[in-house]
Amino acid sequence: MPGISEKGLGMAASPIRKLVPFAEAAKKRGVKVYHLNIGQPDIATPDCALEAIKNLSDKVIEYSHAAGLESYRRKLTGYYKSVGINIDYTDILITTGGSEAITMAMSVCLNPGDEIIVPEPFYANYNTFAYQTGAVVKPITSKIDNDFALPSIEEFEKLITPKTRAIMICNPNNPTGYIYSKEELEQLRDIVKKYDLYLFSDEVYREFCYDGVQHFSAMNLEGIEQNVIMMDSVSKRYSMCGVRVGALITRNKDVIAAAMKIAQARLCPPYLGQVAGEAAIDTPQSYFDEVQNEYVARRNFLVDALNKIEGVYCPMPKGAFYAVVKFPVENADHFAQWLLEEFEYNGQTVMIAPASGFYSTEGAGKNEARVAYVLKIEDLKGAMECLEAALKVYPGRTK
Amino acid sequence: MPGISEKGLGMAASPIRKLVPFAEAAKKRGVKVYHLNIGQPDIATPDCALEAIKNLSDKVIEYSHAAGLESYRRKLTGYYKSVGINIDYTDILITTGGSEAITMAMSVCLNPGDEIIVPEPFYANYNTFAYQTGAVVKPITSKIDNDFALPSIEEFEKLITPKTRAIMICNPNNPTGYIYSKEELEQLRDIVKKYDLYLFSDEVYREFCYDGVQHFSAMNLEGIEQNVIMMDSVSKRYSMCGVRVGALITRNKDVIAAAMKIAQARLCPPYLGQVAGEAAIDTPQSYFDEVQNEYVARRNFLVDALNKIEGVYCPMPKGAFYAVVKFPVENADHFAQWLLEEFEYNGQTVMIAPASGFYSTEGAGKNEARVAYVLKIEDLKGAMECLEAALKVYPGRTK
Repeated sequence: MPGISEKGLGMAASPIRKLVPFAEAAKKRGVKVYHLNIGQPDIATPDCALEAIKNLSDKVIEYSHAAGLESYRRKLTGYYKSVGINIDYTDILITTGGSEAITMAMSVCLNPGDEIIVPEPFYANYNTFAYQTGAVVKPITSKIDNDFALPSIEEFEKLITPKTRAIMICNPNNPTGYIYSKEELEQLRDIVKKYDLYLFSDEVYREFCYDGVQHFSAMNLEGIEQNVIMMDSVSKRYSMCGVRVGALITRNKDVIAAAMKIAQARLCPPYLGQVAGEAAIDTPQSYFDEVQNEYVARRNFLVDALNKIEGVYCPMPKGAFYAVVKFPVENADHFAQWLLEEFEYNGQTVMIAPASGFYSTEGAGKNEARVAYVLKIEDLKGAMECLEAALKVYPGRTK
Repeated sequence: MPGISEKGLGMAASPIRKLVPFAEAAKKRGVKVYHLNIGQPDIATPDCALEAIKNLSDKVIEYSHAAGLESYRRKLTGYYKSVGINIDYTDILITTGGSEAITMAMSVCLNPGDEIIVPEPFYANYNTFAYQTGAVVKPITSKIDNDFALPSIEEFEKLITPKTRAIMICNPNNPTGYIYSKEELEQLRDIVKKYDLYLFSDEVYREFCYDGVQHFSAMNLEGIEQNVIMMDSVSKRYSMCGVRVGALITRNKDVIAAAMKIAQARLCPPYLGQVAGEAAIDTPQSYFDEVQNEYVARRNFLVDALNKIEGVYCPMPKGAFYAVVKFPVENADHFAQWLLEEFEYNGQTVMIAPASGFYSTEGAGKNEARVAYVLKIEDLKGAMECLEAALKVYPGRTK
């Protein structure tokens, strides 16, 4: 029996996935599990997107253009204009989810051995995508005690080597919910320019900025227009993660041309998802207002409840729908597993995502976990009651 | 401005894509272009698949399971059983088109530098996928004068080195339309077993077997159950190329486990396409009968017309909807470009796919081109008249 490739063997399974069997076992025991671990919103997909699917008039579901339907790309420029990003439709390559935008960008920009600096904690799948390319993630730790602000430029410069090829950010950030300010981004711009790096900017949570904070896109950083590659997705914006439609966006025509060769080889992004995506651009502002109000209410409830639990600290996230929480525990991986395996409170327990999966530095964030507020407030309430009760009896509690 | 990666630069654009600007220019001059170059069928998608999309009742288009909807995978085992392939639903990983099944299989089975033997002419995108993995395609030439039958096992053995890790076939074959017999596949089985290789079997044209020829799947080769990985797709079977739904199928659990790590990182295959794919399994036999009758009529017309043109030779393909044709020309790339750039007949011309893109051996198939019979017979007739007229005046004609 022929073996698995080194890369096939080397990919890490995330700490969240390791917990899945324990969650399943808990459910089998009849325990209700509140899933604070997931990133699947419960918000309805906009009607205009669903209607476009239901009114499909095609007789043959054909390949689209490899870069995506031209009508969709042209209409998208209007959406981007409405959020202050001026681009041409030829700057857009429609991808199969934001995931493919990341893999394409890494594939055409990074050679094996090239280094990519990523503030941690970061979206765990960046690791897998970089690993597939043979690139090396160099984490730079942002600190919970500093509310996960961008590390100083001096810290970045310490990590720069002749192999450094890119910096990658997620803004608003998954998992921390932090939104980088214009000033922070301009500091990044300076370092990107100084060392002629790529700046990969994952902006899929653009619509989820709270408390009046304005999102500033890396696409609007002056002087590094050829260095910036934005990754986007309709998954979160319109709560339609399943359509698998994203975009790689850059004014760098060499990058577009190289990515197009990959795009053509895989033929095209999903047509039905593009139909939904194109229609979704007409989603009324009232939809986003409602969604935002709902998330703000959930966030406020969650963060308040967490900080009221003795020994717990949760910074107030300004965006996305996640928070990273510090627990009074030795090891959040163990705590998360214990919650599922040994604990229940009134027949209920909680599943959290240990932050170790979002850090690349060994041992960093060991007492932290990511919680998503994609549940209704009533369920968040139940979850918080469980967590509070759990921390009173958890044997690995530190203080 | 940071540069493009070596892989980004190194990917070849296919000879067909180089012709696209010439086809566009011809159309701008008002010339009608018959597209014999494309693989997009004009056949209607089955009603049951379209209806499933139109009747969508989801309020939120959520991620599916990373391996695909369980209901879909379970139902697919029934489809496979109906074509004589007995597998469990856990042997199936739903992918984003057949393309992703190929990239996943290559990624988890091949190390950089590993060699993969592929009978040529072969589907040009195999090159790009292998190149991305760092694997090296070793072509073994099948000959038009032998109707593109599998080269002898002796020829295969000559190519085996310590780096050889896999053999890849496409059956029925794109571009030749050849269907490997059970005997040929058993010869492959012997060599796969002897050297403990992977056998990658792309069987997306399974439904397109003519003249009573029975398709024999590599999944039914005894003694190499752990070596075979089948790539499949709903694109051609149900004429819905745009849904981007395929499958990686293998009884090798190590391969499934490794591929699942990639699958989880990219989250899931397209949900809407899976809905269409699941519903399409109920497509009545009458649909396939009609499609088959249509393709057989087109093929018979096309091959007959081609062989009637002086100096042209086209073997009778037994499957898929392509044929590779030998033209009395020095260079089919030039001929194809000339057809678009300099020729017209009653305001019409033809676009063909030069076979050079399907060969990896330098100079092989230089006077050959692939033609697809995805056009109505009336259009094929117009195309054949053009070709006949063109060959009378083409300056690069050899005899």
